[in-house]
Amino acid sequence: MAERPLFIAVVGSAVCDEPVAALARAVGQEIGRRGAVLICGGRGGVMEAACQGAKAQGGITVGILPGPDRREANRYVDIPVVTGLGDARNAVVVRSADAVVAVSGGYGTLSEIGLALKMGRPVVGLGTWELSQQGRLVASIVRADTPLQAVEAAIALATKMRTGEEE
Amino acid sequence: MAERPLFIAVVGSAVCDEPVAALARAVGQEIGRRGAVLICGGRGGVMEAACQGAKAQGGITVGILPGPDRREANRYVDIPVVTGLGDARNAVVVRSADAVVAVSGGYGTLSEIGLALKMGRPVVGLGTWELSQQGRLVASIVRADTPLQAVEAAIALATKMRTGEEE
Amino acid sequence: MAERPLFIAVVGSAVCDEPVAALARAVGQEIGRRGAVLICGGRGGVMEAACQGAKAQGGITVGILPGPDRREANRYVDIPVVTGLGDARNAVVVRSADAVVAVSGGYGTLSEIGLALKMGRPVVGLGTWELSQQGRLVASIVRADTPLQAVEAAIALATKMRTGEEE
Amino acid sequence: MAERPLFIAVVGSAVCDEPVAALARAVGQEIGRRGAVLICGGRGGVMEAACQGAKAQGGITVGILPGPDRREANRYVDIPVVTGLGDARNAVVVRSADAVVAVSGGYGTLSEIGLALKMGRPVVGLGTWELSQQGRLVASIVRADTPLQAVEAAIALATKMRTGEEE
Repeated sequence: MAERPLFIAVVGSAVCDEPVAALARAVGQEIGRRGAVLICGGRGGVMEAACQGAKAQGGITVGILPGPDRREANRYVDIPVVTGLGDARNAVVVRSADAVVAVSGGYGTLSEIGLALKMGRPVVGLGTWELSQQGRLVASIVRADTPLQAVEAAIALATKMRTGEEE
Repeated sequence: MAERPLFIAVVGSAVCDEPVAALARAVGQEIGRRGAVLICGGRGGVMEAACQGAKAQGGITVGILPGPDRREANRYVDIPVVTGLGDARNAVVVRSADAVVAVSGGYGTLSEIGLALKMGRPVVGLGTWELSQQGRLVASIVRADTPLQAVEAAIALATKMRTGEEE
Repeated sequence: MAERPLFIAVVGSAVCDEPVAALARAVGQEIGRRGAVLICGGRGGVMEAACQGAKAQGGITVGILPGPDRREANRYVDIPVVTGLGDARNAVVVRSADAVVAVSGGYGTLSEIGLALKMGRPVVGLGTWELSQQGRLVASIVRADTPLQAVEAAIALATKMRTGEEE
Repeated sequence: MAERPLFIAVVGSAVCDEPVAALARAVGQEIGRRGAVLICGGRGGVMEAACQGAKAQGGITVGILPGPDRREANRYVDIPVVTGLGDARNAVVVRSADAVVAVSGGYGTLSEIGLALKMGRPVVGLGTWELSQQGRLVASIVRADTPLQAVEAAIALATKMRTGEEE
């Protein structure tokens, strides 16, 4: 068997405006172009835009759905995983990834950031949550200013994770 | 059957220093004293201290464990629920509560805050995460300065939730 | 803290006829009378009848619900655990028990029997599934003819499990 | 986007002897040859043999792993989904499939058969469990005598399911 590709999760809201969708689409394109597999929650908004971007570059997309029905998947999901776990599926999304890119996002995204950091998965943020404790910024999320920067950082961090695993 | 009591989740790290444990213990005491059931992740640190406090007041404690073995529960857990779900059990902790009190906490706690807010559960914070987006504080967590304040706020919000359910 | 009581799961269909409900009620009574905690899926049918029986004897009942809303619990559940996991919650029901009593039951019950046996939890059956491979009965389920027999067997097996754990 | 392929789950033990592995490999080949995606639990034994068969025919394989680490996947898994859910991941395996083929198998397989039937997923059996109630065989599992028969039945049932969904 060939070596496995990198798996990059893109997390963000199921509903978003067009500027955020454009960012997510560009993130998906950069992931697809680099031959990484895009993992996401499989629904609309940021997830759909990211999948659309990845497919436009011939990438592979996996959608880990919360509900019990595959038809919940957006049309750009190649591999729908139908969990029926509700929000508990967020843990599966980030657990399955080598690195996570958070694009904007609401409370579900916040939970995925928390779970990813708990599991030791690197998180790159594009206009997403900022975390502080006692008034001081906690710099756990790698900040990126553009989709290209975000994906380059995620790929670099994921590659480092993977190398660590193999040792 | 009598009406069900309120269920208040206490979330925080599995390892903590004594000042944080003292806060968690006091939170547990206030919950136990009011006849609410304390829900938590069942492990050490903040969870153990909160359970200890609740038991000191004759309260009931439920521990929703991540691992496959009941012996992971701290000694103050009355009802250990053994999920074997890993970090995905965080969704079960907050889903089972009418309101959530976050005491200090790390990334697991951050994920529980995100999940609770996603599910519409009120979150009261005691020295926990502060959330911002684009440099502006997002005031989704009700801030408390003392354990008493935290539990009074959580009970008030939980009661309001419960009343809403019954309508 | 006092030592933990035994935890006995009762599994069976969410809809059942009165003779099956009567069996489940009697199983619940025997569990409650012995001071064991009754664990179940928290819904109607066998689960509700078992909880009713346990409560009639002053027992404690835990309902591990599949859906996202506590109001799904039957009225005899003391501690509703709201998983939102769908059928994946079956694993949590049996994982949380020292032994499992299956009363009649459909496919969900069959899955709980399979999961319990996989996890090494003893299963006692009262008019439930019979398992064969290549035409030969596989005697993994301890057969009982009455609720009393079923609970006595479950308590004995659970006690043995617990003693094994402590060694 | 092109229409989605069929998703066929193959369930069976993580450890098996060579005759059972040969059956599983042939099942995987027939699935791969027909362009269906093979879903499984991602580990050894029946799962590995089925994935190997599918890959030999250019098929796509998805492994829905119980543990927290992708390296648990067998080498023929293209898309490892890392759940960390333990045995609760069995619900995700069968939920994600249009039809399930059970090859021999132990208690985990029994739970997957129960879950699949509960969720309304057709199950085809190749030397697997036989189910009875009160001494009478319950014919919920479609029996097949050869891998070819098993996969043809599964594909036919899955196609019927899918057509029903689209109506």
